[in-house]
Amino acid sequence: MLKNYLLTPGPTPIPPRVLETMARPIIHHRTPEFQRIIQEVEEDLKYVYQTKNEVLIFTASGTGAMEGAITNLLSLGDKALVVRGGKFGERFGEICQAYGIEFVALDVEWGKTVDPKKIDDILKKDKKIKAVYTTLCETSTGVATDIEAIGRVLKNYEAALVVDAISGLAAIPIKTDEWGADVVVSGSQKGLMIPPGLAFVSVSPKAWQMIEKSTLPKYYFDFKAYKKALGKTDTPFTPAVNLMIALREALKIIKEEGLDVIFERHKKMAFAVRGAVKVMGLELFSPDAYSDGVTAVKVPQGIDGEKLVKIMRDKYGVGIAGGQDELKGKIFRIATMGYITATDLIVCIATLETVLSEMGYKFQLGSGVGALEETLK
Amino acid sequence: MLKNYLLTPGPTPIPPRVLETMARPIIHHRTPEFQRIIQEVEEDLKYVYQTKNEVLIFTASGTGAMEGAITNLLSLGDKALVVRGGKFGERFGEICQAYGIEFVALDVEWGKTVDPKKIDDILKKDKKIKAVYTTLCETSTGVATDIEAIGRVLKNYEAALVVDAISGLAAIPIKTDEWGADVVVSGSQKGLMIPPGLAFVSVSPKAWQMIEKSTLPKYYFDFKAYKKALGKTDTPFTPAVNLMIALREALKIIKEEGLDVIFERHKKMAFAVRGAVKVMGLELFSPDAYSDGVTAVKVPQGIDGEKLVKIMRDKYGVGIAGGQDELKGKIFRIATMGYITATDLIVCIATLETVLSEMGYKFQLGSGVGALEETLK
Repeated sequence: MLKNYLLTPGPTPIPPRVLETMARPIIHHRTPEFQRIIQEVEEDLKYVYQTKNEVLIFTASGTGAMEGAITNLLSLGDKALVVRGGKFGERFGEICQAYGIEFVALDVEWGKTVDPKKIDDILKKDKKIKAVYTTLCETSTGVATDIEAIGRVLKNYEAALVVDAISGLAAIPIKTDEWGADVVVSGSQKGLMIPPGLAFVSVSPKAWQMIEKSTLPKYYFDFKAYKKALGKTDTPFTPAVNLMIALREALKIIKEEGLDVIFERHKKMAFAVRGAVKVMGLELFSPDAYSDGVTAVKVPQGIDGEKLVKIMRDKYGVGIAGGQDELKGKIFRIATMGYITATDLIVCIATLETVLSEMGYKFQLGSGVGALEETLK
Repeated sequence: MLKNYLLTPGPTPIPPRVLETMARPIIHHRTPEFQRIIQEVEEDLKYVYQTKNEVLIFTASGTGAMEGAITNLLSLGDKALVVRGGKFGERFGEICQAYGIEFVALDVEWGKTVDPKKIDDILKKDKKIKAVYTTLCETSTGVATDIEAIGRVLKNYEAALVVDAISGLAAIPIKTDEWGADVVVSGSQKGLMIPPGLAFVSVSPKAWQMIEKSTLPKYYFDFKAYKKALGKTDTPFTPAVNLMIALREALKIIKEEGLDVIFERHKKMAFAVRGAVKVMGLELFSPDAYSDGVTAVKVPQGIDGEKLVKIMRDKYGVGIAGGQDELKGKIFRIATMGYITATDLIVCIATLETVLSEMGYKFQLGSGVGALEETLK
């Protein structure tokens, strides 16, 4: 008999209150009942986004909304600046390429964070750049970007600030309006604690002006169609009805706990995880610029990182994430967001200890859990 | 106390066995467990599609896959032929327009079916047409198109045959390979009996050849990326995990009953509904070319059609669909597909009788239900 624990940075575990809503008989989406759900979800998303801007909802993975953030803002001939410091930063570049948008790539070593001054330098030189594409939390490395500082730089330019906050929203602070983020993209299966299948964007008045002029082709992700439907508490296309109902419940839970309390909890848990792995003699992948939603740890010398993740999952039921692309086998990642609690972390670190020990890594059994208890108490 | 019944042509009711799967704790998508689910779902979709072609799965509404059927097959300068006989036929035209694709519109009066000879005539004259876009079941009017006959016409041409089978798949027959349908688009919330949020396309070898040459921009709906992932039992972007698990269960139910038995059941139910409303003195919107998945009925003179649908829903808990766009208030639609049974139809027709009578329409109470019983016995 195995009990399963999920500590991956998306999908994250779903609270029972939310799971239960998805087993209810489905309702039709063109009804007053569903209109009220749309309205509630839109309002509560603004709370999580810390914004007065419209928040649009798509039936898609986060990548669909990332594509929309390019096709709706830009026109052929426009240039973009893409900050690439991991798998998801690179994705913005790939989308630009697919749509024939020339972009300046600001490459940051995986595990490091971007220096906002470099963005300033590029924008100073290149007036054709219409938008800067960044990532709040790079899920592949666990690095958080200082969006506030980038926002300050962008105040001096015409360019719009686009933030991929897919694994950041509701995990760590994103002050959309205060920091001047024009378009913030997110997804449902991370801090929002529901299954994957919904994607979101907030759109500032400045971004709407760009959207009015944009000539890149789009249909399913056409922001204007979604804006038009907002006023009618409608959706342009059939929405993912039961995910919307799940989202309403998850947002209620978030509001009940309160954003600031949630961020503090995530911070404390992330701090505890980092302390625990360090006591075990492990090294953080990026000690300086962590998101409190996910921590990446270097796999120690001589240990097979992919095997470590597999044994934890298959033999002990504990799901953590391995490294992606160039980090495959080199790191593992532990999420500390949403419906992941202190007790999950205890099971996770204890299992990590057990498996590392089985694999021949030398350290004091119980030392990680001890450190965790110390920090979390 | 009200008990709710849903007889709308999407979303359709979800069997309890399927609902239950969505309340289970979520699993991660990059695991052997989820790989087996992908594999099973892909295989079973081929059964429902009656095809050996690849079937790709998107996290999106059906419209997303419709967009993909244009952006993946065509290139700037190509022409399309779009058969428009309702709201959803028109959508293909709108997508062509959004992507700068010139198209010949073959307009069919709403409620009528297209004459395949007209397609032949157009293709004969215009060699630049690379693809014909049609609708298996036009949900807005309930009309079914003779895809088999169109397929025969297209055998003499290079043009690909694209079929929107969103509300047709698993509701009425679509013999993808036998009829020569190159791309068949579908969605999850109709005959497949799960919530909206997944979209599908089957792709023939001939369509793959066109896709290789296509230059229209795409990223999230890039068929080639999904094909590449198929071989690895993977998805290019985070899939809608719990909808995939629900789909696996729904496909099991479909296989247990058997496609042919399902089609017979739908046919019998649709026939019964049509008989019942005729006995009540009502008129079918299109008597000749009905899909067995949905029946559109004209609202009788002097009755407010929108009010009829509202009273049935709000006072009696019975959800049927009204008319859309130009048919608003003029028709109502009753679905007979998926997890809609004879007992649902009895409640639906009895409620329709009650409400029509309340609204002043003159007929023999019980006559519709009597006719229904007679046909369904």
